[in-house]
Amino acid sequence: MAGQAVNVLITGANRGLGLEMVKQMLETYRPVKKLFACCRDPDGPRAEALRTLAKKHPDVISIVRLDAADLCSIKQCAQQVGALVGTGGLNLLINNAGLLCKSALQETSPEEMQNSFTTNVVGPLNIIQEFLPHLRTAAKGSKMPGMSCRKAAVVSISSVLASMQCVKDSYSIFSAIPYRISKAGLNMLTVCAAEELKKDEILFSVLHPGWVRTDMGGEEAEIDAPESVQGMLRVMTSLTEKQNAGFLDYKGHTVPW
Amino acid sequence: MAGQAVNVLITGANRGLGLEMVKQMLETYRPVKKLFACCRDPDGPRAEALRTLAKKHPDVISIVRLDAADLCSIKQCAQQVGALVGTGGLNLLINNAGLLCKSALQETSPEEMQNSFTTNVVGPLNIIQEFLPHLRTAAKGSKMPGMSCRKAAVVSISSVLASMQCVKDSYSIFSAIPYRISKAGLNMLTVCAAEELKKDEILFSVLHPGWVRTDMGGEEAEIDAPESVQGMLRVMTSLTEKQNAGFLDYKGHTVPW
Repeated sequence: MAGQAVNVLITGANRGLGLEMVKQMLETYRPVKKLFACCRDPDGPRAEALRTLAKKHPDVISIVRLDAADLCSIKQCAQQVGALVGTGGLNLLINNAGLLCKSALQETSPEEMQNSFTTNVVGPLNIIQEFLPHLRTAAKGSKMPGMSCRKAAVVSISSVLASMQCVKDSYSIFSAIPYRISKAGLNMLTVCAAEELKKDEILFSVLHPGWVRTDMGGEEAEIDAPESVQGMLRVMTSLTEKQNAGFLDYKGHTVPW
Repeated sequence: MAGQAVNVLITGANRGLGLEMVKQMLETYRPVKKLFACCRDPDGPRAEALRTLAKKHPDVISIVRLDAADLCSIKQCAQQVGALVGTGGLNLLINNAGLLCKSALQETSPEEMQNSFTTNVVGPLNIIQEFLPHLRTAAKGSKMPGMSCRKAAVVSISSVLASMQCVKDSYSIFSAIPYRISKAGLNMLTVCAAEELKKDEILFSVLHPGWVRTDMGGEEAEIDAPESVQGMLRVMTSLTEKQNAGFLDYKGHTVPW
């Protein structure tokens, strides 16, 4: 956990897993130099808990507007972050913002498909593209060999529901066609990014957070957000070039594609 | 190959693999009762070869307009086909129409992502939804046990490029981010459809046609369209409920997800 202070960005940081990540980053992932907590509406009622947290850590947390479905906001956020991190670059980018649409095949509308795809796949693609200069800066500036989340990495929150092999076991309780399809797309994006950018020593992986009691996961879920995030941060800390392009759950187990 | 005459629909049937499928269906997949050869512009210059073929087999081939990116055309096509097949239903639907966009991660635009997703994923979803009544009619009317392409099936043309496990081997020669992501989505759609509709005894699978010398595959590809289609039709003939939700290449080998 020790070492050089890192710059971290988390999307969808105002609630659920994102907010919990911000909290635990401050406590256990130290030393964090700058923590960019991004959300769609930093001044809105749904970001109140995040604002309260940011007030306690004004030197570390910066709340920045970012809507994964709005390319313009992504470009602006990347500019702001670039100005603040400077030659340190961005070490860790966590694509956490996501949309969950639960419909089954026969009731899924084209709009649900498009919205899920825009937020869960096109958003992360645009984010990777726009923040790539800052990730490259971090990788080049690092003295560490190989790959790690303290050097330069993009971790995207996916789901076991994106696993083709696991559809059989989960479909009857959770069909979620637009979500599954978009997260399978996010997995493919991650594997391709890992391949294209390995020469830059930027690590890419997808994580399954478990089935978590959040607004998204619902009340009947299996674990709470602190347990999920504790596991995911532990996994992130352990990632090396061996896990590049990997799909792991919050316990560190490989999930089949 | 023998047995009750079947009704078949092929999208993107005016050229490449689609046109070759129409040809071979007439020759080797007999008996075919009705063959709906769908394309975006039945009267346009790119459908001339299909029109010539249809004139030779006026009792079997019907050319019907269908644009996978246009829900309205899908609904109209389903109505026309329903009226023509009547109580026989539609036995085999081949989602062959597709868009290939070759760009790498750093140069992919949101528009390329959206267009590929619309044609390669949302299109097949809409097509499955709209033709489901006719597929169900075929399944219910069939006296055969289990599942098969002569009873009721949806076969979608995917690609080994949609395999997460195969990215490493192919990315440097063929990045194709929008294509890979959309075809991974098509794979997920197929697996989910197989799960949701197995109670209706409708078979779903995805096929990798090989790397084929067509307008899409380019001139440096490995095999020609007749060889690919010959293999795929052989595979389709062999499909049973054991291959439901399967991903096979034109030789019948399983492709990893």
